[in-house]
Amino acid sequence: MPVINIELTREGVTREQKRALIQQVSDVVTNILNKDPNLTHVVIREIDTDNWGYGGEQVSVLREQGITADKK
Amino acid sequence: MPVINIELTREGVTREQKRALIQQVSDVVTNILNKDPNLTHVVIREIDTDNWGYGGEQVSVLREQGITADKK
Amino acid sequence: MPVINIELTREGVTREQKRALIQQVSDVVTNILNKDPNLTHVVIREIDTDNWGYGGEQVSVLREQGITADKK
Amino acid sequence: MPVINIELTREGVTREQKRALIQQVSDVVTNILNKDPNLTHVVIREIDTDNWGYGGEQVSVLREQGITADKK
Amino acid sequence: MPVINIELTREGVTREQKRALIQQVSDVVTNILNKDPNLTHVVIREIDTDNWGYGGEQVSVLREQGITADKK
Amino acid sequence: MPVINIELTREGVTREQKRALIQQVSDVVTNILNKDPNLTHVVIREIDTDNWGYGGEQVSVLREQGITADKK
Repeated sequence: MPVINIELTREGVTREQKRALIQQVSDVVTNILNKDPNLTHVVIREIDTDNWGYGGEQVSVLREQGITADKK
Repeated sequence: MPVINIELTREGVTREQKRALIQQVSDVVTNILNKDPNLTHVVIREIDTDNWGYGGEQVSVLREQGITADKK
Repeated sequence: MPVINIELTREGVTREQKRALIQQVSDVVTNILNKDPNLTHVVIREIDTDNWGYGGEQVSVLREQGITADKK
Repeated sequence: MPVINIELTREGVTREQKRALIQQVSDVVTNILNKDPNLTHVVIREIDTDNWGYGGEQVSVLREQGITADKK
Repeated sequence: MPVINIELTREGVTREQKRALIQQVSDVVTNILNKDPNLTHVVIREIDTDNWGYGGEQVSVLREQGITADKK
Repeated sequence: MPVINIELTREGVTREQKRALIQQVSDVVTNILNKDPNLTHVVIREIDTDNWGYGGEQVSVLREQGITADKK
């Protein structure tokens, strides 16, 4: 029965990446909790980089400064 | 005081349907709980069909396969 | 497919009121949108009155002052 | 560690207002709670005026009637 | 930067299951999106079975009827 | 009209800190956006440290290791 919301910045996530998120997050959650996948919803919310901030700074400003959230 | 969020797929919901959702959900909730409607907010969030999945599959793919979420 | 969240203050809502919320909100939403009820989830989140505020004031303080959110 | 979501109607909020929201809300929350700003995220979700209602009425209809949510 | 919310019914999920959810969902999301895990938050919200419904019925009532959400 | 959700770990936040959050966040948001405070709701959701993670690790485990989210 879980509902999983994935909130992230709108920075070119592809349809295939979204499909992979839905499939793999659904698999992980339903396996750990032994839940019926048909009752398990995954919702992706994309947020403009002007509308997200951390460390007190807007992500779009961080990006202009060359600061990414990429894995190192 | 309730805040009600209705999260659904963006598939042609009309302005009139949204108005009906706001009116009728507000009515139901304020009647059951005896709450002041002016303190009761209803927020509708529309989600692209690429961004929602259940049963481990993306809704946009389900729609291409002719699978709907319509009432039977 | 809608997921509906109802967020309200924890002030003695009964099990029967919650059941009525689930049934009637599900009915209203699935009728207006013509959606399958089995894909429609309703989630009620109860919030302590110390943890909610409006007009810049904590609800628990408003209640001590005799101010309710009841329908007039 | 807080995550702060600010949900508001899409009515011309500027990039600079969003940046001010992110900075000032982050400051207030991290100061009161003594939390590391780098672990504190602020997310702004803009909602079309057709998709928000209170008092049982759609905000876009209220606006057409000249009713605003402006500070008095 | 993603924030992932997992909303589920409070039905005996153990601390170890929660830890596994956090680790595996974080892995899946950061791998697909190439994001820094230190900017990736996972939040689990447990909801009483009286407070969740689908198909228009309260989950606590479904459980009394022997209906589970277990994987088949 | 904004609704602000503040989601944080349940680690001894006092009633007075919550009241300060409600007052100051409401002030900041209504000042920047010129919104009526009476239409502005602030909701604080406290999450057990077993139910939150970042960097792929459960906060309760981080705390056992002496790792805090305190401001430095």
